[in-house]
This record gives sequence, C-alpha cells and structure tokens, in this order.
Amino acid sequence: MYRPLLQRSSKHLNLSRRYSSNSSVFNWLDPLASNKLFTQEELAIQETANAYCQERMLPRVLDAYRYENYDRKILEEMGEVGLLGATIKGYGCAGVSSIASGLIAREVERVDSGYRSGMSVQSSLVMGGIDKFGTEEQKDRYLPGMAKGKILGAFGLTEPNHGSDPGSMETVAKPHPSKKDYFLISGSKTWITNSPIADVMLVWAKLQSTGKIRGFLIDRAACPPGTLETPDIKNKNGLRASTTGMIQLDECPVPKENMFPSIEGLKGPFTCLNSARYGIAWGTMGALEDCIDRARTYALERKQFKGNPLAKYQLVQKKLVDALTDAAYGILAATQVGRLMDEGRAPPEMISMIKRQNCDRALANARKLQEIFGGNSVSDEYGIGRHVANLFVTQTYEGQSDIHSLILGRAITGIQAFA
Amino acid sequence: MYRPLLQRSSKHLNLSRRYSSNSSVFNWLDPLASNKLFTQEELAIQETANAYCQERMLPRVLDAYRYENYDRKILEEMGEVGLLGATIKGYGCAGVSSIASGLIAREVERVDSGYRSGMSVQSSLVMGGIDKFGTEEQKDRYLPGMAKGKILGAFGLTEPNHGSDPGSMETVAKPHPSKKDYFLISGSKTWITNSPIADVMLVWAKLQSTGKIRGFLIDRAACPPGTLETPDIKNKNGLRASTTGMIQLDECPVPKENMFPSIEGLKGPFTCLNSARYGIAWGTMGALEDCIDRARTYALERKQFKGNPLAKYQLVQKKLVDALTDAAYGILAATQVGRLMDEGRAPPEMISMIKRQNCDRALANARKLQEIFGGNSVSDEYGIGRHVANLFVTQTYEGQSDIHSLILGRAITGIQAFA
Amino acid sequence: MYRPLLQRSSKHLNLSRRYSSNSSVFNWLDPLASNKLFTQEELAIQETANAYCQERMLPRVLDAYRYENYDRKILEEMGEVGLLGATIKGYGCAGVSSIASGLIAREVERVDSGYRSGMSVQSSLVMGGIDKFGTEEQKDRYLPGMAKGKILGAFGLTEPNHGSDPGSMETVAKPHPSKKDYFLISGSKTWITNSPIADVMLVWAKLQSTGKIRGFLIDRAACPPGTLETPDIKNKNGLRASTTGMIQLDECPVPKENMFPSIEGLKGPFTCLNSARYGIAWGTMGALEDCIDRARTYALERKQFKGNPLAKYQLVQKKLVDALTDAAYGILAATQVGRLMDEGRAPPEMISMIKRQNCDRALANARKLQEIFGGNSVSDEYGIGRHVANLFVTQTYEGQSDIHSLILGRAITGIQAFA
Amino acid sequence: MYRPLLQRSSKHLNLSRRYSSNSSVFNWLDPLASNKLFTQEELAIQETANAYCQERMLPRVLDAYRYENYDRKILEEMGEVGLLGATIKGYGCAGVSSIASGLIAREVERVDSGYRSGMSVQSSLVMGGIDKFGTEEQKDRYLPGMAKGKILGAFGLTEPNHGSDPGSMETVAKPHPSKKDYFLISGSKTWITNSPIADVMLVWAKLQSTGKIRGFLIDRAACPPGTLETPDIKNKNGLRASTTGMIQLDECPVPKENMFPSIEGLKGPFTCLNSARYGIAWGTMGALEDCIDRARTYALERKQFKGNPLAKYQLVQKKLVDALTDAAYGILAATQVGRLMDEGRAPPEMISMIKRQNCDRALANARKLQEIFGGNSVSDEYGIGRHVANLFVTQTYEGQSDIHSLILGRAITGIQAFA
Repeated sequence: MYRPLLQRSSKHLNLSRRYSSNSSVFNWLDPLASNKLFTQEELAIQETANAYCQERMLPRVLDAYRYENYDRKILEEMGEVGLLGATIKGYGCAGVSSIASGLIAREVERVDSGYRSGMSVQSSLVMGGIDKFGTEEQKDRYLPGMAKGKILGAFGLTEPNHGSDPGSMETVAKPHPSKKDYFLISGSKTWITNSPIADVMLVWAKLQSTGKIRGFLIDRAACPPGTLETPDIKNKNGLRASTTGMIQLDECPVPKENMFPSIEGLKGPFTCLNSARYGIAWGTMGALEDCIDRARTYALERKQFKGNPLAKYQLVQKKLVDALTDAAYGILAATQVGRLMDEGRAPPEMISMIKRQNCDRALANARKLQEIFGGNSVSDEYGIGRHVANLFVTQTYEGQSDIHSLILGRAITGIQAFA
Repeated sequence: MYRPLLQRSSKHLNLSRRYSSNSSVFNWLDPLASNKLFTQEELAIQETANAYCQERMLPRVLDAYRYENYDRKILEEMGEVGLLGATIKGYGCAGVSSIASGLIAREVERVDSGYRSGMSVQSSLVMGGIDKFGTEEQKDRYLPGMAKGKILGAFGLTEPNHGSDPGSMETVAKPHPSKKDYFLISGSKTWITNSPIADVMLVWAKLQSTGKIRGFLIDRAACPPGTLETPDIKNKNGLRASTTGMIQLDECPVPKENMFPSIEGLKGPFTCLNSARYGIAWGTMGALEDCIDRARTYALERKQFKGNPLAKYQLVQKKLVDALTDAAYGILAATQVGRLMDEGRAPPEMISMIKRQNCDRALANARKLQEIFGGNSVSDEYGIGRHVANLFVTQTYEGQSDIHSLILGRAITGIQAFA
Repeated sequence: MYRPLLQRSSKHLNLSRRYSSNSSVFNWLDPLASNKLFTQEELAIQETANAYCQERMLPRVLDAYRYENYDRKILEEMGEVGLLGATIKGYGCAGVSSIASGLIAREVERVDSGYRSGMSVQSSLVMGGIDKFGTEEQKDRYLPGMAKGKILGAFGLTEPNHGSDPGSMETVAKPHPSKKDYFLISGSKTWITNSPIADVMLVWAKLQSTGKIRGFLIDRAACPPGTLETPDIKNKNGLRASTTGMIQLDECPVPKENMFPSIEGLKGPFTCLNSARYGIAWGTMGALEDCIDRARTYALERKQFKGNPLAKYQLVQKKLVDALTDAAYGILAATQVGRLMDEGRAPPEMISMIKRQNCDRALANARKLQEIFGGNSVSDEYGIGRHVANLFVTQTYEGQSDIHSLILGRAITGIQAFA
Repeated sequence: MYRPLLQRSSKHLNLSRRYSSNSSVFNWLDPLASNKLFTQEELAIQETANAYCQERMLPRVLDAYRYENYDRKILEEMGEVGLLGATIKGYGCAGVSSIASGLIAREVERVDSGYRSGMSVQSSLVMGGIDKFGTEEQKDRYLPGMAKGKILGAFGLTEPNHGSDPGSMETVAKPHPSKKDYFLISGSKTWITNSPIADVMLVWAKLQSTGKIRGFLIDRAACPPGTLETPDIKNKNGLRASTTGMIQLDECPVPKENMFPSIEGLKGPFTCLNSARYGIAWGTMGALEDCIDRARTYALERKQFKGNPLAKYQLVQKKLVDALTDAAYGILAATQVGRLMDEGRAPPEMISMIKRQNCDRALANARKLQEIFGGNSVSDEYGIGRHVANLFVTQTYEGQSDIHSLILGRAITGIQAFA
C-alpha cells in the first residue's frame, strides 16, 4: 500500500526489489542504473506513486479508454496521495524535487498518458501558473483545494485556428461597460484537457487596451448562464482516458482580481508549458517502459514454429533492445534536466530537447514493439495499442515535434525558420 | 452514379478527369502515370468502384468505425455492383483481370481497410478457394449467391495459439461415429473477419486419419445447436469498420461432400492467402493515397505563423513527397504483379514482396502524414487516425511483415531462418 | 563477348540465363520479373553492355578508384561498343530507346558510379545538349566523334558559389572588343566531371547584353594559352574512378557560331540535367544490385558461431530483403518513366521523383548491406565500400535529394518552399 | 598550450569558455550541460587533451588519412602528455577516473577515430590487459615504457575466419619441443590496429594442452626471423589515419613468463574489449560533435537562393537538431557508465548498450550532416566524409552493432539468439 507523500519519512522506505540496482549484474528494468541518481526520498516517492498507480489506476484504465470515461475521482485520489502540484512549497503541496515530480509522471504514464495529462494540467499548467504568477490571495484561494483534488483546473491557451502559434490568439478581454474592475472575456479555446470537469480555468486572453496576453482565473461557479460553455470533445483517437473539451466564452464577466498581476505576453503560458513539457519527457518514458514490459512478456509466452518463444527471434530481440536503450537514455536525460531545473539552470531549449526526443523515441519504439504482438495487437486487452495511440498525441501536443525542431534549430544556428 | 460491372461496356466510359494522364504535365494524383498501364475497361471498373465507394460507403464509415458497427448490407451492395469474386469466370461473377480486381481493392480501401478486408475475405479467401479447389457442385451451390452478397463467407485458418505458423493447427476433423460420410469437427479459430455474420465458413482442419490439413465448407444453418459459435471480438484498435470474431466448433457435423475434394496440406490455405495478399498490396495504396489527399488539403487550408499555410513548410512538403513517391512506386509494383498473375507467372514470393512493402510503406507514410494534422489529428473526423490504425493491422495480418521478410530471405539465400 | 550496338541484330540474341524470367519460379536476380517489360532488342543491348562492363571495366575499377586514375580509353571503348549518346538518332549514334539507354547505365554503374558518371556527361549532358539545342553544323562537327569516344566532353554549369541554385551563376560572356562575332567568356565552374580530359566543354554563361543564360561549346584546342584551365580535383571521398576538375575561363575567346542558337535561360541546362538524372535513376539500381550480389555471396560464404553462414541470421536476411525490394521497385519505376519519355510524356517532376528515390534507396540499402561484411568491409577488395561512397555522391549531385523534395513539394502543393 | 597530466594541479585550471555551462542560457556546445557532471580535474584533463589534439594532431590528419600514413610519434606525444593508460594507477600512468579517460577519447576522436583507435589499443587493450591480468614483473617491464609511448602495443584476437566469434580461434600455443618453459605459437590474426609498428603484441591463443584461451606478450625483438610477420593492410575504406595489419605467427617461441598467469578463456580478451568499448562510446561522441560543428559552420557560411544561408532551411535545421540531441544523450549515458565503472558496478551489457547506441547514432547523424555539404562533401578538405567513413568502422569493430543487439537481447529475455 501507498502512503501520502506529506507523511513520508525515510524510515518507512521499503523499496521494491524491482527497482534496486545494488549489484553489478545487468538489470533490464534499469539498464543504466539510473536509480542510483535518485535520492532515497525520491525513490520512496516513486514507490508510493507506483503503488497507487498499479493498484488503483491500472484496473480502471481499460474501461476508461474504451468508453472515453474519465473518472474525476482519480484526481481526488491523486490529491490524497499528494501527487498534485508536488513541487510547490507550501499551500498543502508536497514540495518535492523536480526529479521526484518526474518520477511521479513516469509512474502515472506507465499506466496511461491520459491520466498523466490530466495530472499535468492540474499540477504544471494551472497550479504551477498560479504559484509562479498569481497573487498571494489567488494562491491561498486555489492551491490548497487544487492540491487535494477538490478544485479541478483547466488551461485555456490553444484556439481552433492557433495551435503552434498562440501569439495570434483571438480571445480578448475588454473592460466591462458597467461593472467596475471587471472584464468581459470572449473567445474560444479547444483541445483543453479537463475543461468539461474543471472548476477553475486559467484562460489566456489579449487585453483589449494593450493587445498584450494576460492570464485570467475563471471560476465556473461565478459565470452567469450562457457566458461559459465547456463542451466535451468525444471520439478521440488517443488519450481517451482523459477528458477533453472546449472553453467557449461569450462576454464572460471576470473580476480584475482574477487576473495574474504582472505577467504579460507569451512568457506566462510558455513558462507553464515548459514545466508541463518537462513532465511529458518523464511520463513518456514510463509509457515506453510499460510497452517494453508487455512486449517482453508476450514474446516469452507466445510460441510459434516448433514451440520456440518469439523472444528467440533476432528480429524480436532487436526491437526490445532498441526500445530499452532509448528508454534508458531518455531517463538519464530527463534526470539531468530535472537536477538543473532545481538549480535554475535549465533553459527552455533543454526542455524542448527532452520533450521532443523522449516523445519521438517513445512513439517510434512503442510502434516497433507493437509489431511483436502480431495480429493479437488489435485487441485492446494487450494495452500496447493504447500506449501507441496515446504516445502519438504526446508527440503533437505542447509543441509538436517539428516545432521543437525549429526552436532548437534557432538556438543552434541563430536563425529562425518558422516560415 | 455507378453501373454494375456485368453490364459494363466500353461505350459508356466516362472517366473522371481526376485519373487522366493525357498530358505531359505532372499530375500529383497519378505521379508516375500508372493509369497508362491500365486498359480502358480496367479504368472503367475502377471508376465504377470509386463512385460506389465514395457515394455510398464513405458516408457510413465514420460511424461504423466509431461504434464497431458493420453493416452487412455493404457486402450485398458490393454484390450488386459486381465487386465480389470479380476475377472468377462464370457463376455470376464479373471475370475481370487481376489488375481490375486490384483497382477495386484500391478504391474500397481508399475509404477504409476494414471494408476492403470484408470484401477480401468474401472474394479472395472464400470464393477464390471454392473456385480453385471446390467441386463443381460446391461452386454451383455457393458462388452465385456469394457473388451477389446474399451468402456471406468467412475463412477459418488462424487459431489462438497458431498465427504465423498455421501448420501446427489443432482443429481436427474425425469421422462421425454414427453418420456415414460425415465428419465431426472441433477446434477454435480466431481473428476471423466476418465470422459473426457469415453464412458459410471455409474452415481448415486436420483430418484425423491422415494428419493432413483439409478445407471444409460449414453452413451455419446446418449446424446443430451448440456445435458452432461465432462470438464477436469487440473493442479492436483498428479495422473497427469490419466485423471480427471467432469460430468455435464443438463436434460440429459436416458432410464429406462439403470437404474440398483433393487439395491437402498448407497449399490450400496458402493459395487463398496469396490471392488476398495481392489485394492487400493494392488496397493499402488506396488508403495511403487517401491519407495524402487529406493531409495535402489540410496543409493547404491550415495556416499558422503569419498566415502561411502549413504546405509552405519544408518539413511538411517532405512528408507529402515521401508518401507520394512510395504510393506511386507501390502502384507500379502491384500492377506488374497483377499482369504476371494473369499469365500464371507470379510466384508467391512476389506477392510476399508487394504485400510486405506496400503495407510497410503505407503505414510508415500514413504516420508521417498524420503529424501534419498536429493536435487536430486526435479528432476522428479527419480520418487520418483511422487509416493509421487500420494500416497497422494490415501489416500484421495475412503474414506479418517480419514473416514475409523471412519468406523472402529464404528465397534469396536458400536458407530458412524461422527458428 | 560483346558486339557493337550498331551491328546489333535480333538473330544474334544469346541472353544469359542470369536475366531470364521465363518460369513462374521466383528469381532473386529479377524479383518482380521486370525483364518481361523489355524488348528483345533492349535485352540484347543490356547483355552487350553487361559483357563489356564485366569483362573490360570491372578488372580495372579497383585500381582506378584507389589511385583516382581515370583511363580515358574507357570512353573510347564505350564508343566502340556503341554506348555513347545511344538514344540519339543519326550522327553515328545507336538510336536506341530510353529504356535501352537506362539498361546501359545500369550495367555501367553495376561496376562503378564513376564510370557511369563519365558516360552520362558525355552522352546525356553534352551530346544530348548538342542534339537538342545545337545547330546542324554543331551536330555534324561534334556528335560523330563524340559517339566514337574520340572527342570527350564536359558540362560546365555548377560554380563554386552556386550549386543548387545555378540561376545565380556569375560566368559571363561579353562581346569581344576587337574580334567580330566573338565572345570573351570569364568565370569558374567546379565539380566538373571529365573537365581535365575534355576536348570540348559545354559551358553555360550569362550573355552580358541580356543577362540570359546561354550555352557555349568551347574547344580546348582553340583556346589561347592562359584563357582556359581545367585543374584536377583530387582526393575525393567518392567517385574516385571518374575524373573531376574545374573549368576556369579568363577572357576566353569563343566564336558566336559555338553558341547554341536559340535556347535561353535555365531551360537549356535543366533539359540536359533531366536526361542525365534519368540515367542516374537507372544506374544507381545497378550499383545496388551489385551490392546485393556481393553481400549475398559474402553472407553465404562467411561462417560464424558453430559454422552457420551469416545468411542464416534473421538480421542479415532482413537487410537483403529490404534491399532487393527497393531495387525491384526502383527498376519498375525507371522503366515506366523511360517508356513515357519516348512518348514525350515524362515531365521533369517524374524524373525528380525517380532520381531522388532511387538514389536515396540505393544509398540507404547499400549502407545496410555493408554492415553484413562486418570488419571486413573496411577492405576495399570487397567493393561494397566503394559503392557506398559513390552512391552518397549520386545523392548529392544533379539535384541533392532535399532539393528534389522541394521541387516535388512545389508540384504537389503549388507552393514553393526553397527559401 | 597543454601540460602533462602527471603535473596537473587544480590551481592551473584555465577552462576554455567553449565548455563552460555556468549560466542558464542554452549552449549548443553543451546542450544538456553535461559539463556540470565532471569534476574540475576531469575538465582540466579534457582541456589538456583538447589542446594537444587541436594543436598537434589536427594539422596532420588530412595527410595521414589521404596517404594512410600513420605517424608513430603521435603515440609518443600522447605518452608525453599523459594520455596513455591514463586510468592505471602507478607505473608512470596518470591514474585518472574513467570519466577523464572518456573525455580524452572524446577529444582524440574529435580529430579522428583512427587516432583514437591507436590510443585505445595501446591504453585499453594492451596496457589495460597487462594491468589487470599480468604478473608484477610483466607490469614493471611494459607499463612504464608503454605509458610514455616508447613501447607500442597491439592486441591480437580476431582471426581471418573468426570475427564475431573469437571462441573458435585457431591460433595455438604448444609446448616447445626442446626449450623448457617455452611455447611455440602459430596462427594468424587480422585487422590488428598498430600491428605493423608494435613492439609488443598481446596475442590470445589456445593452449594446446587444455584447449583454453590464454594471453601471451610477444616481443617483436625477441622473435627469431621468420616466426613473426606483421604485414600492413592498406587501401582501407576508413580509419586510414591508423595503421592496421596482420600478425602471422609461425612456430614463434615465447617464454612461459610472458603468458598471463591465471586468466583463462574468453574472459581475458572480453575484459580488455569491454574497456576499449567504453572508450569508443565516448570517442564517437567526439567525432559526432565535430561533424555538428563543421556542418553548422558550413550551413551558416554557404548561401543559396537569394543569399539565404543553408542554416535557414528547415530540412537543414532538423539534421542539426537530431544530431545534437543524440550527441547530448550519448554523453550523458557514457558519463553514467563511467561513474559506475569506477564503483565496479558496470556490467558488460551496459557497455554493449552505450557502445552500440553511440556508434549507431554517431554514424547515422554524421551521414545526415554530410548531406548538408551537398556536392562539396566529396572533397576531403571538409573532413565530414572522413568522419563518416571512420564511424562506419567503429560500428563494425569490437562487436558489430547487431552482435551487441543479441548480447543485450539475451540479457533482456534470457534467451540467446546467435544462431
């Protein structure tokens, strides 16, 4: 069983043998012994997250994905375990290291990228945004409830016509014609994880008076009828275990006190995204590790041609080896960036690099591993097809792979090539 | 509107401009002018198939895929148009060339691989098997009704424990203890397209007396209760617009007259598979062409960064060009093999080559094209995700890609490397 | 032994068994039976070329490549066999089909891409240019001697600062200040195959008066000392069996009668390049086929681990199969374009497509095949390293692969993305 | 200027700005700030090695590679700087960490893989073997002179018929018929780096009496005429700046005291190889970094199409980004394994993983970067072609990539698939 992170104590460490790397014998579960880079506390946090995810989330995911049925209790449970906003100091948050938060993302996405997405939105995009840019009053109002999973958040940046290019957003906040210190916000946001169930929405809009992008915390409960709609987007090809929707604002009145006080322009949302992207780099490695585990098991159990297990075939072994190598490398890279983040030395390009590479490699390898299942991979019970579909989405969101290529290309050459 | 193939006449040719290649101007819809290799009749058949597929099938596919809802009327309609068993001479079949049957598969799979799969099973696996190996009585009994889509067929070869290695099958036919000239067949077949709706099942089983594989035509209507079950397999990751199930036989009595008279061993099912694989090589090119078409349209319409269409980006253009090239090459290869088939000069390794390569390239390119849609690709309304999921299945069935590698490797080196 | 093409007669056909595809048995030497698409005459020409290349060129290539030692007699011998300017009608040329000329390129490059390059320059770039754009007098003066290999040609387009973008060339032709109907040409051309040994150079320069690009035939013998230098470029990484140099013109006087009469702008050189690119698409397939042959032989002969030949390893078989498939597909595509060329229906984009794809696939597969040789591949005696190095150059010249991507991307989307 | 490692002092640190990562600004020269993982001493050693390599080796490499002309003074100079056997404690060796030795390999291979190969043989294979398995007398006799580069070593394991499978070696040591405590060794070793110039050869042979593999130190000076030949292997496709040859032993008398005292079987040579492979994993990253540097510079300087630098093209930027990412990841992985080695916790499979992956990625990316040079890449002056050719060899030696796949596949699945 798992114990809430806030009650953690190094006395209670009971690390599973699964993750130990104490000998000099090769351990395919940790091929480059990255566990040696984590503190005992970080490993304990990972173990707590792993126990919760395997015991409580895993049994629900097949149905959740099949029927696009997100259980909002999952965020509440995560809150109880202490997984939400885990790097934030105070406000009822666990205050753990960036590595520990990465290990949490890895464990959650080992189950499903959709569950990790729901958590990332809550933790990195909304709570992180409030923690970094909010007023003290905003923090006090939202963070404790969000940490517990009692208040759910959504992050409204992407618009129907502006995905990779949010600077061109059309959502606008203009002064309320009658109510002092109020804005009326109008516009449409799409592909918003958690929007249908969110209690508070961090919406980015251009202030009409300045043309500058500002962040607004919109409480669903405070919106007059007809000013806020958050319709579901159903029938998704991936991330079906998360809930996704739109945020449609039609002259929605929002008090000035709900605006972030000073952050202006793209720096605000990009800072939030940066933190979420870091979590994706970790999470996708967890999904890939699960694919390896499932494919390895299948290859050992499935026998063809004179009773040989598939694992005896060179073409099968190569797929496993390629995947394991990329997972091991990806974990090391994410670990390095995590340490640098805590020292304030991780520029956004580093995060572009690991987000892009880990998503790309997780996807490419998961697809090769799926081949091992042959015709059986079409059954959703093997789980590998779900990971493949999810990982494709991770490659496209929060900076599609090619966009991160151009961000990095600009950093290398000094020349931008976006258009 | 389309006209049934049996009433076709070259007088009525009304080829759409879409497929013409009469000038020396580059036409991205037919980049290497493969249409010049087809006869007027073949082009007319393609046009008929295209019209039916686009007008009648396309509007149904989104729902069919979403809800795994196969409409058996589709096979009936195909029968009306003359698309079923199209290469068979007589018995109410159209008697067209192998190229024409390939063009039909291309048009059907341009809509959906699942629809093409349902047709392939009917046409290549069952009707083709009966035509090649059946008695005259068997042909008379089944082919005309199957050609019309009134009798639906399924093909039972793969078993739960024997996918790539059907020679190890466990389904057995033993003499009926009491009924003369009857067998009792027991065993289990899985991943059987059309099995839940099939009227007749071509089941391969080992004759207990000889240990040799033989083919049996099992009429659902003649099976006593409890001897035949064909449960659906739901919640598939791909090919959701086709229906798939098992065939479970428990001492099912089958008269000797329903056994193929002389074909023995794997040659029977492999001959049927060969014909189906040929169709897959064509069909997957149709699916890829549809992906190109959809991605190109999206790239021209979607604007980012100062209003530039995505089509202006080098990284996007390269994806389109790679895909178009592989589609053009794949069509030429399938055309060549089709002509050779009609001359009796297409050994199975040729078909392994084009099945493997066209499935692999269709899948790889469809995945790259899907990236062009960015986050929007997660919506099933763009269709590209459906093709990607389907094409993965085509790569794994009727000879997984690696298995065909080893078949071809053996042909090149003279050495088998299966285990 | 081989017989000159001009004396060819279908009575003398003696096709080697190597290339026959008369049965329905799979023949790895012609996996998709492309030979059935060639006429008896075309096959006879291929056989003649094959015999010459294998008997006379192959024994010389190892030394030629090692020491960058091009034997100009090779072009003379090619002339005797009838391989030069083979598609040209009259002027002592063989007047064969585009397919036949492609088969010649395939046989020459089966030995070495450098030898094929030397031939392409002579045949496609210079003789082809004269035949298409020259005056009758120019044709009479050059073509018969060039067909015999007595007069060697070079093609001067690329400049040190203008590779992919020849429209920006700096070489200029201005009126001679004193000699009537003479130009003075100045400028520098680089990476010019055959330039150090060429007797006549087809140089593209901008006419000072119009700024338009025009073609000039420059006779080395007629150039006053100091006005023409053609220094060797040595120490190349590839194509070492061909000779490459610069063309440096310093106020070189050229009579107006040596200018092509009417062709203006990039259309002239691009038409020549088009024809050469078509030959490259064929030639690289010959090189790839030779790599397959060498790798297969090595894999069958080399034994490791309990005496098993390498050919028994799945990872080795897959490399052979991938390569063989791409070679077979590439031959079919080149054949299709060749037939269309003879009908005047092959737009340049088609040639971009097969040039790009066949170079790319030949290179990628040759590299994978080279891995089969393990450490031994470092020895130049196995020949595979030479092909790999050569094929990389073919990918970069006459339109680098990415440039052809953008040419095709423009054709598909209508949008140019060069910069 | 550089200072010998033995005289190093942390007081004298003068780290170049090139490698500093002190700020939170992205530095393409160290994209994931791996330098923060190294100690000041390790960075100082790297800087010393860098200075020597750039100042003294780089100016010689073009000619050395062109003419296959290895200057044995280079090893002597390396000895003076302290680069040889650098991890060995005592015997005049520098006694540095495994990380520091990796950084040395990275700096040497930044210039040329051949130079690093020569150093690896001396340091890892021969000195490392003596240090780990030799008698105290053997260590005293060889190590100090080898550390200075006065005694050169070669490592004789691979035989003409036994590359990936050294356990089948045929070289044999039988008792001398007349001389007490002497063996007569006969056999042939090939692809032996440094053999033509080596003073001492560590040769692995089977002891006739036991059939077990043992290691022998053979002094060239002590071999009677006709018993030892070390012919050059010339005309290599890569690693031309190193010298390679055979070791041919014909009843060569070797005293028993020159045999390693207790190590038996493949464990001996595999331990040496393990250490060398670790160095390759570092070295290839240096070569890749040099390719990136050269390609980036070229892309910024080379202008095409309206004066845009190549660096502005998306297709060019992507090649740079992919390469930079793999280099950064590879450095982190090598660093992790280096630290574990010093703790005695790096099993051979870890080294298989980083040797395989870093060689594969270095090669694949170097090839893509070479495309940026277009036609100019054929000139050896740009250096990129040399790296590409070298890196291919590193992929094939000391365990070809596929062999390491199978080693790792066995570790993951517990099943060996070598044959």
